[in-house]
Amino acid sequence: MSQRAALIAVIVAFLVGIIGSLAVRPPSGNTAPAQSTDSTRAAQRISWRVPIAFATNLPVIGDAIVYVADTLSAASNGAVNLQVFEPGEIVPPFSITDAVRDGKVEAGYTWLGYDQGKVAAAPLLGAVPFGMEPWEFSAWWFDAGGRELGEALYAKQNIHILYCGITGPETAGWFREPLESLDDVQGLKIRFAGLGGKVIEQAGASVTMLPGGEIFQALEKGAIDATEYSLPIVDQRLGFNRVAGFNYYPGWHQPSTSFHLAVNLQVWNQLNPADQGLLEAVCTASVTRNLSRSEALQGAVIAGFPDVGVSAETLPDDVLRKLEEISGQVMAQEAARDEDFRLIHESQQAFRNDYAKWKSRAYLPRDF
Amino acid sequence: MSQRAALIAVIVAFLVGIIGSLAVRPPSGNTAPAQSTDSTRAAQRISWRVPIAFATNLPVIGDAIVYVADTLSAASNGAVNLQVFEPGEIVPPFSITDAVRDGKVEAGYTWLGYDQGKVAAAPLLGAVPFGMEPWEFSAWWFDAGGRELGEALYAKQNIHILYCGITGPETAGWFREPLESLDDVQGLKIRFAGLGGKVIEQAGASVTMLPGGEIFQALEKGAIDATEYSLPIVDQRLGFNRVAGFNYYPGWHQPSTSFHLAVNLQVWNQLNPADQGLLEAVCTASVTRNLSRSEALQGAVIAGFPDVGVSAETLPDDVLRKLEEISGQVMAQEAARDEDFRLIHESQQAFRNDYAKWKSRAYLPRDF
Repeated sequence: MSQRAALIAVIVAFLVGIIGSLAVRPPSGNTAPAQSTDSTRAAQRISWRVPIAFATNLPVIGDAIVYVADTLSAASNGAVNLQVFEPGEIVPPFSITDAVRDGKVEAGYTWLGYDQGKVAAAPLLGAVPFGMEPWEFSAWWFDAGGRELGEALYAKQNIHILYCGITGPETAGWFREPLESLDDVQGLKIRFAGLGGKVIEQAGASVTMLPGGEIFQALEKGAIDATEYSLPIVDQRLGFNRVAGFNYYPGWHQPSTSFHLAVNLQVWNQLNPADQGLLEAVCTASVTRNLSRSEALQGAVIAGFPDVGVSAETLPDDVLRKLEEISGQVMAQEAARDEDFRLIHESQQAFRNDYAKWKSRAYLPRDF
Repeated sequence: MSQRAALIAVIVAFLVGIIGSLAVRPPSGNTAPAQSTDSTRAAQRISWRVPIAFATNLPVIGDAIVYVADTLSAASNGAVNLQVFEPGEIVPPFSITDAVRDGKVEAGYTWLGYDQGKVAAAPLLGAVPFGMEPWEFSAWWFDAGGRELGEALYAKQNIHILYCGITGPETAGWFREPLESLDDVQGLKIRFAGLGGKVIEQAGASVTMLPGGEIFQALEKGAIDATEYSLPIVDQRLGFNRVAGFNYYPGWHQPSTSFHLAVNLQVWNQLNPADQGLLEAVCTASVTRNLSRSEALQGAVIAGFPDVGVSAETLPDDVLRKLEEISGQVMAQEAARDEDFRLIHESQQAFRNDYAKWKSRAYLPRDF
């Protein structure tokens, strides 16, 4: 599919979604999970409707759920079936966990940072400015109490979350003009998500939140001056390079971006332990596959920038240091306002202090 | 279990193995894989004997197969059963793929670098000096042709390999005396494995290969002066800190160490696709879990070094540069001697050149 065709598909999918989302269909009759643990039970054990936040034709962030659904189906001989619905097709992309919480769908696949407005601590499970690198997040999640904290946070929302994907850093964004000092973001109209959005807002930008499918048009029409969204291969697919020629690095606002499968808590609790085990294993496999694909595909995109008129740029060190300082202030503000945020933030900080003793010793210098 | 008790258990397990391995038992009668794809088939579909190279009481390198076996059993409701045999119990730790190739066991879990003597290219799938970091190896394996090359290499050995675990860097080793220049390794009797062993040998050391269970005694008796083996938490569990007080970093010889489940090719081909899919998904999940545990547990061990009389040391930059130069020579020698080595090495180098364009841009500087 050409870039333009892909772009149009995304926009159409989103507009269809706007209409479709006005009337969220109730779950169909065959979606009740099987409760039998008898190995001779009928073939279909799980048939869930799974809305997603990122179109499946987007590399890395969109196709991870396809891997999950295909692998579940293959490993269960078709007995575990996720019916994936494109962004907005049955649920708006920013309302996925609402639909899961209320039982309108059994599960959804999303970035929990979009829940920032109703669950203040949610972005800590999705992406943190100057936060953990991908493998560091996995280590915290599985071996330093992260999972327990995350599950408890979302149990209050009537949701069981499974860690089900992660990518490396996003790009720091696409700009029409060079960003030489932090003064350059004063009054800049920029699309930005999550805690990074609060940081860049505190730095003086005018921040708006848009789903992936709306960003290109907003940039093209001048409704926004700049945007961050995702990885180079995703952003280029969405056409940002055609309306903003400067692509900045490093991804200070999201050194890793993790994704979760959110399952309605009653639906999860009614599953038999084998199916819970299978879902968890396949989501954990998706973490490896998603990060692998994320790391593998970006180098070629950056190498091709000169051919499509993009300049890859690195933010000056003093800009990064200033953004880090503001990030610290934003994290402290959020921790003071919300107890769950404080608890999870402290757990992450404690782990990072410990991890630093290893990270600083074990790896070769970056210039090897 | 105390460190000493764990150490004795490892040594006993190894000595028992030496005796046990003199008569490798043939597969028992119930190990033939089920070929039915009928969902009403009897519960037990897979029952394999799986010898391993690292004792299950060793953290990270030893317990990954326990995760794999437990998860397979849970997700299949007990229908997929790996019977894990400790190192040497039925197969010597360095002969696991021989037993799999010859059908003496259905599968085994090991580090393919131990096959260096019979499959020259095997260490490229296990660990490469100044080679890929863990997530980079995964990206090459899944998304840049690594898996296809690895599978083809081992199909010649009558084996299907599944990538089934990875850790971060090993330590660069345990030494009785400080290592201030490369002259200090001249004539040093050291235990070293894989391609790193060839490099340190070329640098002037006298290299020997010993399984984990034999290293402590060799160090204590002075049969060797120094050793590398694994991660800080593993090496300390084996007692190296009690006979060699200097623990060096970074892990130049193994920036990542990957592990594989080796399955007899006929056994693999007779599996139904669903069980193949389940095994592959759980092994891929093990990659996430193994790396997470590897990254999570080392910081506390390093923090505790002063209490157990260990000095953590960083190799001087000029020593690393010289070792990198020798590594390049060793890689070129091996590539010239073996066509498979050349082919896989070139694939890895091509991927690394591409990946570097991303790595150098995307991540924050190491001092953030």
